Amino acid sequence: MPELRKDPITGRWVIIASDRAKRPTDFERAPVKPTGQGFCPFCYGNESKTPPEILAYRPQGEPNTPGWSVRVVPNKFPALGIEGELARQGEGVYDKMNGIGAHEVIIETPAHDATLAGLSPKNIEDVLWAFRDRMLDLKKDPRFRYILIFKNYGEAAGASLEHTHSQLIALPIVPRSIREQVDGAKQYFDFKERCIYCDIIRQELEAKIRVISENEDFVTLSPFAPRFPFETWIFPKRHEAFFEHSSPRNFENLARAIKSLLLRTDLVLDCPAYNLVLQSAPLRESHLESFHWHIEYMPRLTRIAGFEWGTGFYINPTPPEEAAQYLREAQVEETVPA
Amino acid sequence: MPELRKDPITGRWVIIASDRAKRPTDFERAPVKPTGQGFCPFCYGNESKTPPEILAYRPQGEPNTPGWSVRVVPNKFPALGIEGELARQGEGVYDKMNGIGAHEVIIETPAHDATLAGLSPKNIEDVLWAFRDRMLDLKKDPRFRYILIFKNYGEAAGASLEHTHSQLIALPIVPRSIREQVDGAKQYFDFKERCIYCDIIRQELEAKIRVISENEDFVTLSPFAPRFPFETWIFPKRHEAFFEHSSPRNFENLARAIKSLLLRTDLVLDCPAYNLVLQSAPLRESHLESFHWHIEYMPRLTRIAGFEWGTGFYINPTPPEEAAQYLREAQVEETVPA
Repeated sequence: MPELRKDPITGRWVIIASDRAKRPTDFERAPVKPTGQGFCPFCYGNESKTPPEILAYRPQGEPNTPGWSVRVVPNKFPALGIEGELARQGEGVYDKMNGIGAHEVIIETPAHDATLAGLSPKNIEDVLWAFRDRMLDLKKDPRFRYILIFKNYGEAAGASLEHTHSQLIALPIVPRSIREQVDGAKQYFDFKERCIYCDIIRQELEAKIRVISENEDFVTLSPFAPRFPFETWIFPKRHEAFFEHSSPRNFENLARAIKSLLLRTDLVLDCPAYNLVLQSAPLRESHLESFHWHIEYMPRLTRIAGFEWGTGFYINPTPPEEAAQYLREAQVEETVPA
Repeated sequence: MPELRKDPITGRWVIIASDRAKRPTDFERAPVKPTGQGFCPFCYGNESKTPPEILAYRPQGEPNTPGWSVRVVPNKFPALGIEGELARQGEGVYDKMNGIGAHEVIIETPAHDATLAGLSPKNIEDVLWAFRDRMLDLKKDPRFRYILIFKNYGEAAGASLEHTHSQLIALPIVPRSIREQVDGAKQYFDFKERCIYCDIIRQELEAKIRVISENEDFVTLSPFAPRFPFETWIFPKRHEAFFEHSSPRNFENLARAIKSLLLRTDLVLDCPAYNLVLQSAPLRESHLESFHWHIEYMPRLTRIAGFEWGTGFYINPTPPEEAAQYLREAQVEETVPA
């Protein structure tokens, strides 16, 4: 019998269609591997083919030359423009504003053939530091209310360049899926005086059926009401609203948690295309007790169709308890136990 | 300069990335055409390969035999099960219920090689009557609160069988994207004493820049803040909350409006994969003055990526004014002028 489940934070319902239960091998397999074909603007020597860098970690040397380990550049085809004042306008019943924002690319390594899963924990940690440095810098700009960091890996996940990279978009408004989480979590807090995410983490760590792995600071789990098969969330165990306020130790252990998850999904799902999104608190808000930052991982295994577009409801053919078991039992070699 | 626009009903923001402006030919073209390969359970003579029919329009003859023009059958692999009582349950911080619902398939024609665009207006009208008949019947079941009718056309839109068909899912709850529309429209009504959809229709018919076509009873337009390039909505001009209460004349003119839109998009976008969703009022609610049923058409031209999943925000590379112009100017031969 299928089951209807509600995400306790946003109130989003999903159908866990257990009658169609899908094992990892039932999904169409299209392993994503860098081919190294064609010109790549993210490789050493091609620094002049991107807009000038905003940030780079390099022991020495000139900006916009080789020698960096992580490099941040403006997106050459930005979705939003960085220059100008915010102008809000009406048009009859409609509202609009000019498209002010920042759109940056975080090049995670100079190695074209690398994947995020294959990078050393130290390299992944450096990528996380670059996220933080850019967030702290952009937060100073009073026009911005939210910063989303995300990764599209593989064409099916929307990546147009194969050299491993993440993106950052700073927005002049708080987007609605964040709004819903912040408001939902605040409602719970007002009622219970507890962070709902902390309650979820406690309940999951006790039940253990949806936990995939954990280390001192992070827990990786299948959410109770996932939209997608093998959707996975990574939470800091201690309550923290802002990713950018994390401690150095947090970054070290988050790097390990991310690597562990990606190695597991690469093994179980055969290197799927995926999206990673960082869900941190809105820049100018202070519901610090109720919002808890986290990372959402979504492999692209199924297609979104009319039902989902028409309802905001998702049909998920893989119960999260089964997904968690597959990922938990995956035998992966980690450089540091996680 | 890109523009940020807000959907006035749901409050959903989109980025109209005019700097990346895309013309119809800039999208990857993958025309969807039925190939007629392999066994098809929806063709004449194979009636026994589907679950027994729930409804069929046939001048004479036995159920589950050839001779029908439109046929409705239960989905062989339903996302929800029709049998049983609704059982609501808690699990710590979580909520769930058993997956009670109806999942039906509307086979739009016996002709395997047909597309919805190519059907006669009369045939399309019959499909609409089948939608209505099924909605009125399922509405009697007190367990259901919402019925979604939708169509996935082409593999990229989630279709698994190529023989042209639509689907119906009856749900024990009102899904959130409907909830948002109903609540947003009610807020507007409480403030203005007017239906926001009626206001939009009036404003669009006056401005004419986003209108694609109209007939006596329906207007087809590009919404102000579309999520997707060439997203198009069809509205009844007269206020009506429930699709299933439409008049026979409405169905006749809606069939013409749908055919006109699909012929235009087939021409301009080269037979794209698409989703159609019917947005009608929740079955048990009575905000009759504020909600206005309509159809949403979304061709699958772009991929949804991390940014969209992380924010609920959409980046649309085609301004709706340009999309409307392309579709408006498409020279299509309609059997009846629309």
